[in-house]
Amino acid sequence: MNIGIVGLGLIGGSLGLDLRSQGHRVLGVSRQAETCARAVVRGAADEADTDLALMAKADVIFLCTPLHVIKTAISQLVPHLRSETIVTDVGSVKTWVVETITPYWPNFVGGHPMAGTAESGIEAALPNLFLNAPYVLTPIEATPALAVETVTDIVRPLGVRLYHCRPEDHDRAVAWISHLPVMVSSSLIAACLQEPDTAVQELARQLASSGFRDTSRVGGGNPELGLMMARYNQKALLQSLSTYREQIDRVIGLVQQEHWADLVTQLEQTQAARSAFVK
Amino acid sequence: MNIGIVGLGLIGGSLGLDLRSQGHRVLGVSRQAETCARAVVRGAADEADTDLALMAKADVIFLCTPLHVIKTAISQLVPHLRSETIVTDVGSVKTWVVETITPYWPNFVGGHPMAGTAESGIEAALPNLFLNAPYVLTPIEATPALAVETVTDIVRPLGVRLYHCRPEDHDRAVAWISHLPVMVSSSLIAACLQEPDTAVQELARQLASSGFRDTSRVGGGNPELGLMMARYNQKALLQSLSTYREQIDRVIGLVQQEHWADLVTQLEQTQAARSAFVK
Repeated sequence: MNIGIVGLGLIGGSLGLDLRSQGHRVLGVSRQAETCARAVVRGAADEADTDLALMAKADVIFLCTPLHVIKTAISQLVPHLRSETIVTDVGSVKTWVVETITPYWPNFVGGHPMAGTAESGIEAALPNLFLNAPYVLTPIEATPALAVETVTDIVRPLGVRLYHCRPEDHDRAVAWISHLPVMVSSSLIAACLQEPDTAVQELARQLASSGFRDTSRVGGGNPELGLMMARYNQKALLQSLSTYREQIDRVIGLVQQEHWADLVTQLEQTQAARSAFVK
Repeated sequence: MNIGIVGLGLIGGSLGLDLRSQGHRVLGVSRQAETCARAVVRGAADEADTDLALMAKADVIFLCTPLHVIKTAISQLVPHLRSETIVTDVGSVKTWVVETITPYWPNFVGGHPMAGTAESGIEAALPNLFLNAPYVLTPIEATPALAVETVTDIVRPLGVRLYHCRPEDHDRAVAWISHLPVMVSSSLIAACLQEPDTAVQELARQLASSGFRDTSRVGGGNPELGLMMARYNQKALLQSLSTYREQIDRVIGLVQQEHWADLVTQLEQTQAARSAFVK
């Protein structure tokens, strides 16, 4: 099959490597000619160009641009498509993406391969990046069944754990396990910076070890990614944050009122529950 | 020097192993005869007994019992001590410990070796557990200088990073980097459990990966340890929790009002600040 990839970064490039391994012909598009050249040299594309006209030859197109340019990307892409061309994407939020792209191109299936590294760009692309990783597809009622089947058949051989759900359910799930943790973790660091006694703050920095390192890790991550989560998954993130604040209020109340038995019960419940999330 | 260790668990046993390596004679006390026998076999004590009378021979005693029995331990220990005997402890909070022990035995220096593993008990004891770990001593004005010097001279050769500070400053510092993270992390798990749609909650469990794993780790830890932090470091923990709640409120406000530039600024600040805590 001829597969188009628009955006040859970590995700687009890694998809290109794996899809070529599966025997597909991969056509890549990047705004940068240098990126196109590197994608071909690295084996992430058979052919690459800065001109979206290349996508006229593609049967299925993976939109792998950052979320904030995806609307521009689809509007520029549409004039080059044949009516049967299927489009999918790799964005980390789905309701907003599906609502944004579908009016331009109804033959669209939202997708989210949940893999990555701390790096970005075509040089960071890796083979088998998606092996054993979740890959969520979010068709809506209006999505053509053939589009869902085709994208499913293309990504399943990459060894992914495939899920199909509504865009809204995807967004609520990732708000809990990905977007809320970033805000929780960033707020932990921000709170520590509020310690007014510089000697105490310096001591805290010296004493911080693995517990602080782990709890603060995602709060010390890429600020642009954190912004994207908040901006494009605003509703679900706010619901999660609101529930989280209630939990913090509850803990404050238990500690203030010395309800130690209830505090232990919560700590026992979260200890037991964590194993259901962390395999 | 004759060094006494009361409580032969992970910390007491590991101290025994290292202090014997340093040429000290180690005398251990445990309530369990079996633990005493194992401590001698494992090389964590030269001699061990269930009777605190053994401590009459000790020059310096490390109290390594859990916090909730430390008051009973010191009151039972005092009748066996010579007036020049120096007592120190290894508890993870210091203001409460210093206030509790000093009336019984003024020749006391609070201490906190900040090392450990997920295991407990004499079988978990390890040589070099404290190598490169922080070891905080918290003398007060009334603490005899000789006691501080003696304990300092005993623990420094273990290769620890030694700090001296007020008990209150220790407690505020560990509230920020150790006790607050436990409550933040436990509350994250507790909030996720509030998702009312079971399909969404199951999806969240399936999609959770390294970000959730790290942020939730200390919240999934030993409930008894979490309780000790809250119970014996109540004041400092409440101050940290209150500041943290303000930060969460601030993030909610920024996301609600779509103040994206301010949100990015916070995420940039916490990204930059984390490196000061995480070496």
